[in-house]
Amino acid sequence: MLLRDPVHGLITFEAEEEAILVRLLATPEVQRLRRIRQLGLTNLAFPGAEHTRFAHALGAAHVMQQLIARLRKMHDALPFWQRLTSDRARDALAAAFLHDIGHGPMSHLFEAVSAGGGRRDPGAAPSDSVSGIGNSTAARSHEEWTEQMLLDPNTGVHRVLVEDDPELPRRVARLVRGHHPLPYLARAVSGTFDVDRCDYLLRDARATGVHYGRYDLPWLLQSLRFGEATDDGAPGLAIDGAKGLSAIESFILARLFMFQQVYFHKSTRAAEWMIHAIVNRATDLLRDGTPLPHVPPGLHSLALGERLSVEQYLALDDQLLLETISAWRDCKDPILADLCARLRERVVFKTFELFAEAASPDKRHEAHQKVRAIAEEEGLDPDLYTALDVAVDTPYSDDRSLTVIFGHGRAHRPAEVSFVLDRLRDETLTRTRLIFASELRDRVFATLGQ
Amino acid sequence: MLLRDPVHGLITFEAEEEAILVRLLATPEVQRLRRIRQLGLTNLAFPGAEHTRFAHALGAAHVMQQLIARLRKMHDALPFWQRLTSDRARDALAAAFLHDIGHGPMSHLFEAVSAGGGRRDPGAAPSDSVSGIGNSTAARSHEEWTEQMLLDPNTGVHRVLVEDDPELPRRVARLVRGHHPLPYLARAVSGTFDVDRCDYLLRDARATGVHYGRYDLPWLLQSLRFGEATDDGAPGLAIDGAKGLSAIESFILARLFMFQQVYFHKSTRAAEWMIHAIVNRATDLLRDGTPLPHVPPGLHSLALGERLSVEQYLALDDQLLLETISAWRDCKDPILADLCARLRERVVFKTFELFAEAASPDKRHEAHQKVRAIAEEEGLDPDLYTALDVAVDTPYSDDRSLTVIFGHGRAHRPAEVSFVLDRLRDETLTRTRLIFASELRDRVFATLGQ
Amino acid sequence: MLLRDPVHGLITFEAEEEAILVRLLATPEVQRLRRIRQLGLTNLAFPGAEHTRFAHALGAAHVMQQLIARLRKMHDALPFWQRLTSDRARDALAAAFLHDIGHGPMSHLFEAVSAGGGRRDPGAAPSDSVSGIGNSTAARSHEEWTEQMLLDPNTGVHRVLVEDDPELPRRVARLVRGHHPLPYLARAVSGTFDVDRCDYLLRDARATGVHYGRYDLPWLLQSLRFGEATDDGAPGLAIDGAKGLSAIESFILARLFMFQQVYFHKSTRAAEWMIHAIVNRATDLLRDGTPLPHVPPGLHSLALGERLSVEQYLALDDQLLLETISAWRDCKDPILADLCARLRERVVFKTFELFAEAASPDKRHEAHQKVRAIAEEEGLDPDLYTALDVAVDTPYSDDRSLTVIFGHGRAHRPAEVSFVLDRLRDETLTRTRLIFASELRDRVFATLGQ
Amino acid sequence: MLLRDPVHGLITFEAEEEAILVRLLATPEVQRLRRIRQLGLTNLAFPGAEHTRFAHALGAAHVMQQLIARLRKMHDALPFWQRLTSDRARDALAAAFLHDIGHGPMSHLFEAVSAGGGRRDPGAAPSDSVSGIGNSTAARSHEEWTEQMLLDPNTGVHRVLVEDDPELPRRVARLVRGHHPLPYLARAVSGTFDVDRCDYLLRDARATGVHYGRYDLPWLLQSLRFGEATDDGAPGLAIDGAKGLSAIESFILARLFMFQQVYFHKSTRAAEWMIHAIVNRATDLLRDGTPLPHVPPGLHSLALGERLSVEQYLALDDQLLLETISAWRDCKDPILADLCARLRERVVFKTFELFAEAASPDKRHEAHQKVRAIAEEEGLDPDLYTALDVAVDTPYSDDRSLTVIFGHGRAHRPAEVSFVLDRLRDETLTRTRLIFASELRDRVFATLGQ
Repeated sequence: MLLRDPVHGLITFEAEEEAILVRLLATPEVQRLRRIRQLGLTNLAFPGAEHTRFAHALGAAHVMQQLIARLRKMHDALPFWQRLTSDRARDALAAAFLHDIGHGPMSHLFEAVSAGGGRRDPGAAPSDSVSGIGNSTAARSHEEWTEQMLLDPNTGVHRVLVEDDPELPRRVARLVRGHHPLPYLARAVSGTFDVDRCDYLLRDARATGVHYGRYDLPWLLQSLRFGEATDDGAPGLAIDGAKGLSAIESFILARLFMFQQVYFHKSTRAAEWMIHAIVNRATDLLRDGTPLPHVPPGLHSLALGERLSVEQYLALDDQLLLETISAWRDCKDPILADLCARLRERVVFKTFELFAEAASPDKRHEAHQKVRAIAEEEGLDPDLYTALDVAVDTPYSDDRSLTVIFGHGRAHRPAEVSFVLDRLRDETLTRTRLIFASELRDRVFATLGQ
Repeated sequence: MLLRDPVHGLITFEAEEEAILVRLLATPEVQRLRRIRQLGLTNLAFPGAEHTRFAHALGAAHVMQQLIARLRKMHDALPFWQRLTSDRARDALAAAFLHDIGHGPMSHLFEAVSAGGGRRDPGAAPSDSVSGIGNSTAARSHEEWTEQMLLDPNTGVHRVLVEDDPELPRRVARLVRGHHPLPYLARAVSGTFDVDRCDYLLRDARATGVHYGRYDLPWLLQSLRFGEATDDGAPGLAIDGAKGLSAIESFILARLFMFQQVYFHKSTRAAEWMIHAIVNRATDLLRDGTPLPHVPPGLHSLALGERLSVEQYLALDDQLLLETISAWRDCKDPILADLCARLRERVVFKTFELFAEAASPDKRHEAHQKVRAIAEEEGLDPDLYTALDVAVDTPYSDDRSLTVIFGHGRAHRPAEVSFVLDRLRDETLTRTRLIFASELRDRVFATLGQ
Repeated sequence: MLLRDPVHGLITFEAEEEAILVRLLATPEVQRLRRIRQLGLTNLAFPGAEHTRFAHALGAAHVMQQLIARLRKMHDALPFWQRLTSDRARDALAAAFLHDIGHGPMSHLFEAVSAGGGRRDPGAAPSDSVSGIGNSTAARSHEEWTEQMLLDPNTGVHRVLVEDDPELPRRVARLVRGHHPLPYLARAVSGTFDVDRCDYLLRDARATGVHYGRYDLPWLLQSLRFGEATDDGAPGLAIDGAKGLSAIESFILARLFMFQQVYFHKSTRAAEWMIHAIVNRATDLLRDGTPLPHVPPGLHSLALGERLSVEQYLALDDQLLLETISAWRDCKDPILADLCARLRERVVFKTFELFAEAASPDKRHEAHQKVRAIAEEEGLDPDLYTALDVAVDTPYSDDRSLTVIFGHGRAHRPAEVSFVLDRLRDETLTRTRLIFASELRDRVFATLGQ
Repeated sequence: MLLRDPVHGLITFEAEEEAILVRLLATPEVQRLRRIRQLGLTNLAFPGAEHTRFAHALGAAHVMQQLIARLRKMHDALPFWQRLTSDRARDALAAAFLHDIGHGPMSHLFEAVSAGGGRRDPGAAPSDSVSGIGNSTAARSHEEWTEQMLLDPNTGVHRVLVEDDPELPRRVARLVRGHHPLPYLARAVSGTFDVDRCDYLLRDARATGVHYGRYDLPWLLQSLRFGEATDDGAPGLAIDGAKGLSAIESFILARLFMFQQVYFHKSTRAAEWMIHAIVNRATDLLRDGTPLPHVPPGLHSLALGERLSVEQYLALDDQLLLETISAWRDCKDPILADLCARLRERVVFKTFELFAEAASPDKRHEAHQKVRAIAEEEGLDPDLYTALDVAVDTPYSDDRSLTVIFGHGRAHRPAEVSFVLDRLRDETLTRTRLIFASELRDRVFATLGQ
């Protein structure tokens, strides 16, 4: 299989151990990823951000292939039972390719809804706000769906995997969760520096036109070496400090920049909130028995708090959700119709960012109450037309999933030896914003200052 | 307005004459372009090709802005009534931005269907085959829709334009068709070297990952000068030969390469045929009164040969059409359900390319008959499950829309002075293929040889 | 004037206020920059780093041109006497173009030699070590030469400048030093974010192949606004925080990365030391009256502690110095001949880096004494064949040359509002190394550990 | 060995078969290439074109490494005695790395001088004009020097090669000439699509900033397959037509564009002519016994028609030649001093291009006579201050060094199956110019029209 890719240029899967990717490609679960954008509604702020999770899955498998090639140049140093056999390579490629099949529509947002059984109390406190990428609850949920699809004997991916080996679905599922007897392989699928991040940073940067997300992937791969052995004797991944320290620094900074510029962009956050409000409103209506046009069965089940079947979940994608929202513009509930019409015509909610002292838990809550009051005075439901959004990320947690080694020395955590990372370690990046319908803008700005 | 774009990097519309773009951006007609991919189903072959006509419209306006800046550095040479006033600049920017609003879903394909009243006799002769980009009938049709939207007093774009000047809709419509008292401006909107091509070549090249479509836009703009005066005294566009000959050569070759590699790609052509077959089948069923689920009103009108309203046409987009196809998988007609299921799961029809003698009108017709016979033997309707596809393009027609001038000399046609273009002038690039359901592949290849 | 440039693509100087650049280009002082590499001997470690100060001068003028265009889109907000007139633009362009004409051969190294009268006591203490880019003594010296060339009525640049305005040489000289009644213009020539850095970061990154030095120049320029007024009422440069904070962060990080990867690269530092040792040895010989072949007059004067004339200084360039070193391989002094032969054949001295505690002033001095002892035992002059090299840079000093403003708020220092810069502010990056002849490598490593 | 390269990014030579490159790198013959620019005086027209033959040699070896990796993915199809063993790979890598060591200073120009014994009758007929890149006489000569260096037991490269295998110098020399029992390997070192071209097109394009020279190297390599077997049974190189036709087309067009834009640039041709005139004048003076300062021994021998030793030849490089020219500005012969001063200060001769009929042998000779007459009237030696320059290249000769194969079909010549190449096949690109001292410009233009 030969593919052209805007990020990596040429992608080829021609080796025997890569043949499984060609077969997985044809499954409905993988093809569905064509209908889910990598960055949800980020295309509202960055018109180029139309790239899909399908392209990302191919990219992640390609990075894994490059990583395997690099590891194999080094693995003669290992005892033979720790080396990267063809079987292990195939497992890792499949895991890289399939790691995202459990994603619901609209990026990570939908998971938050489904995880909570379709009901939330919006706008109350930071932890209730629109969940962001990296939100741990959401992340777990999406991985659960991935696991379920891998293990369900009725899915296409399961059938393809068991053709090779009955144990493969389970092994791939464990790999996706970051578990494998070889720590260096486990960390490559899920860790600070994993093939998922390696691809999405480059892909998101290119699609949005934000340059800061670029880092030097070939050099980073070339700087890899095996790290210290873990308890059971197999080594983890490490960076050769003399070569690769800047590479890993710029990788981590790239991620920080993408959060600041793209993932936490105000329009994206506001639009995601709107989807949220729409789903919440529809849920309430459906529970009350109000009929709505064009309700996809999966959404209906969610609204009623029923557990979705894999089949129902798979039927949900960006295309379906957006068409549903399009259809609801004509529904009888004026609020739902209004919210759907706004989103369809891209009349996105506005935001007011809170900094420093004003962003403290008490102050932001207070500010939100003011905004809620304004909404009410204007005749808008404050639960749906306003929100307090606290987006949080830790750009660099100094875990031990990737160590740095100089010469024959011992393994260091990156922050121990990096000028920049030492200063970023475990620091938290927070963006606090009030979100509200655009017609409230003047009053909100007048009330909150500026 | 500030935007990041994967192709041009930074796009800014901040000048007074550009303010109209910000207002046009918010209209439903422009926002709809977010739901129409630039390259239809090309994403089946090139996973990155998800970019929309919306992003392209912004890019075309950006190129126009750059072109205007360049023309203004030169226009002091013109009598003042031929210069690029703010009003003329605004008109040109609006035309560049709106030139594609008339596009139907699925790239150019849908126009062919609607142009023909929803009915064609497939698979008979080259001229009946799936219409490609550049197909003149289709192109006319899409420009007609654009004109209608501009002139219809109920559209958002019309309302924005008349706010500035009651005559603006008409002037923009004329510009989109390539008519303007100033030939140099007319050719910039519609000509061999127009802002549409300038943007789409770069955008399609980047999204597909096909490098050949790149050419040197800044250098090309810098090489521009005014050409010879036409009858009424105003000059056309010309290239300064000493500077820009290679730039214009590589621009034209870029287009040739994109046709060879992307626009005429076999999977794209086959998938477009499938959409075609689906629409034809649905049309037949609807005419016979067979009920189908989820039929968008516009599609229904088309099937019955009724003229679509602007509103109906605007409701049609890629998202809606793909969701409709998704819904039809469960319809009662087994053939339509089958075709829709194939497309949804990306089981694309196969192709067999005919070269040289085998591609002559007689021979290709004969070959098609053989493939039709095979389909019938396998129980498949040859009108829907096979097609003869003849894709034709003339990479370089030596028109006079862009001339080349050396020093103070006279204007030459590019081919007169270009080593490469002289050899390509008016040559025709043809790709002849048989398209057929994938299960027929072995028999077709066995019959037609290889 | 139209030029192609590997960094900026197309460079054009066509406006009237830019005409002076075309005339300055033809002067011997500017043409001499073709014979001085931007990065001295860095090409030993990065084979692509052959780019010259001439190309950089063009690039800096181009960035100034872009900056001027941006400032002019904003300067209507200023009282007319603070605006960017054509004369002021011309002055700034000339200053950007000429800011480096005082550079001696071999990057900044040669200045250190000449500044010190050609004699140093090598290898004693950090402050005596090879001076690095950014070394303040060296920087002053090179700017002194620039000033002298601008003011000397016999130079070509002086003659070109006075043709426009008798006061121009003095104004340009003041601008190069960062002095101008308009702070926003002064800081553009010399400040945290000046056109010199803007160009050299991109140029050095591209030539070396080190990606980390890239940042988003167009976005950075677009993010500029006027800052707070200074005492005399004219504003400085500022960044619009909402747009440009990431841009300025990545600019400063780019510089940090280039120091870590390129400017402080061990081979470059070692090779520069070798040039140093060669010049020192030759100086001693010439002072003692030992004849040497092919001594350029300027070098001879330097050796005798005489003040160089502008003419003598201008005759010195990389090409001449390297040919002189080539000729000295055959001189009668075996030590000088040996050092020259090593450099010619790229047998570069080795390094041993000291980290953490081992890099403290006492410890590194102690380590150096051990290396000197080894050199002596091997019959090598420790003053010439060993050195202690302490390279120091402060990636980000939170000066007030560029402020950040959000909305209508007050000006902040970047570190006040930047997550990353706050953590880097005034931190010092230090690389401590011992440099020694390659044949000492094994003994040095055995003695110093590892 | 790890290197960063502006063209290929990361270059690594770490495999055992690549170890010879690390040792070859340290030889004086290879290090000398650091002092020879890839494009001679092209930096006068393109300030970025400072890249050296050293960087190109590394790049060519890198491309060979990539090519070998690709061939090895396919060579299982061959009988084992035709496969790419480690020894063969090493030979090919060495040949790629060393193919240019015979180059004299100033690109190809110097060879023409030395090949002709230092004496030519300038300005008489096209074949006597400044020899260009691709000039067959010159090309032969430079390859002769390469061969001599490889076979001379006193060179560093010879010593490194024989350490591995006494027959290696001879095998490498044969490979550089395009001779090897395996045609696919021979053509990779010297053919229409060889590693030399693959690297220099990309490198020259990037350094000059001319985009047209870029083509898709990874895709081209991926499109390779083995071609038809030759007489002795081993296959040549072929392109898989379905995949790679556009790639090879754009490769050949890239070369055409580089000739038009860069290699045949008027300033480069004029400056090369000036070097030519300088060397001719110096030769005459030296033959007459006139003493000149700073004459490198090699140049002296050349002037007297003596055969150069390898050692003498190796001492000649760009740096030495340019310093010699710098020194000759002060020589006693006013003509030589004048020519040298002009070149040093970049006061390059002007050109007048002849097109169509005016470029026919008779007409151009006539035009040259007119220019010679003007020079004489102005007191300038027409043999030195004027020239007729006819630069000729055949962008695409349809040789059989690379064939195209579709599926299991037979091998085609590229032009048989390529729309573009068919139209370019064996066409000749000619640029005819008169070159003359810049002060003659007005009179020449007045006389010759325009």
